[in-house]
Amino acid sequence: MRMSGNYTKQERTFLKRLGKAIKERRTQEGLSQERLAELTGLHRTYVGSVERGERNISALNTKVLADALGCQASDLFRSAE
Amino acid sequence: MRMSGNYTKQERTFLKRLGKAIKERRTQEGLSQERLAELTGLHRTYVGSVERGERNISALNTKVLADALGCQASDLFRSAE
Repeated sequence: MRMSGNYTKQERTFLKRLGKAIKERRTQEGLSQERLAELTGLHRTYVGSVERGERNISALNTKVLADALGCQASDLFRSAE
Repeated sequence: MRMSGNYTKQERTFLKRLGKAIKERRTQEGLSQERLAELTGLHRTYVGSVERGERNISALNTKVLADALGCQASDLFRSAE
């Protein structure tokens, strides 16, 4: 598993945009990071690091977050593209 | 990192559909698994396991595959949803 330090600039940008899309959707839904963490079973600090683009998030975690945010994983990816 | 044995039925179905979408796109593009592995720098056996839905693929690997397949990661996710 690649450590976050090994990402290219383009990869870091992509992960940052994906994190931003998740954060924007979360705030649109009026959810705190704590609440989103509760809804998904993911740790709050993990949610925070995803939103900051520090995580190369998996397909299933993207889907879990999308489900809790009432959208599709593809919506979150499209916002990052 | 969850091992593939710990996935729910719904999660396995999602990963299988995502893998199927990648395979379909690859064959549409007339690429072999070997060629897609070459283009992405991913190992051929990894590409095969992703296509069989055995991998909880990361955001960056989904993007690397999408780039090589001439589509967007969101397209691949949408086909799985």
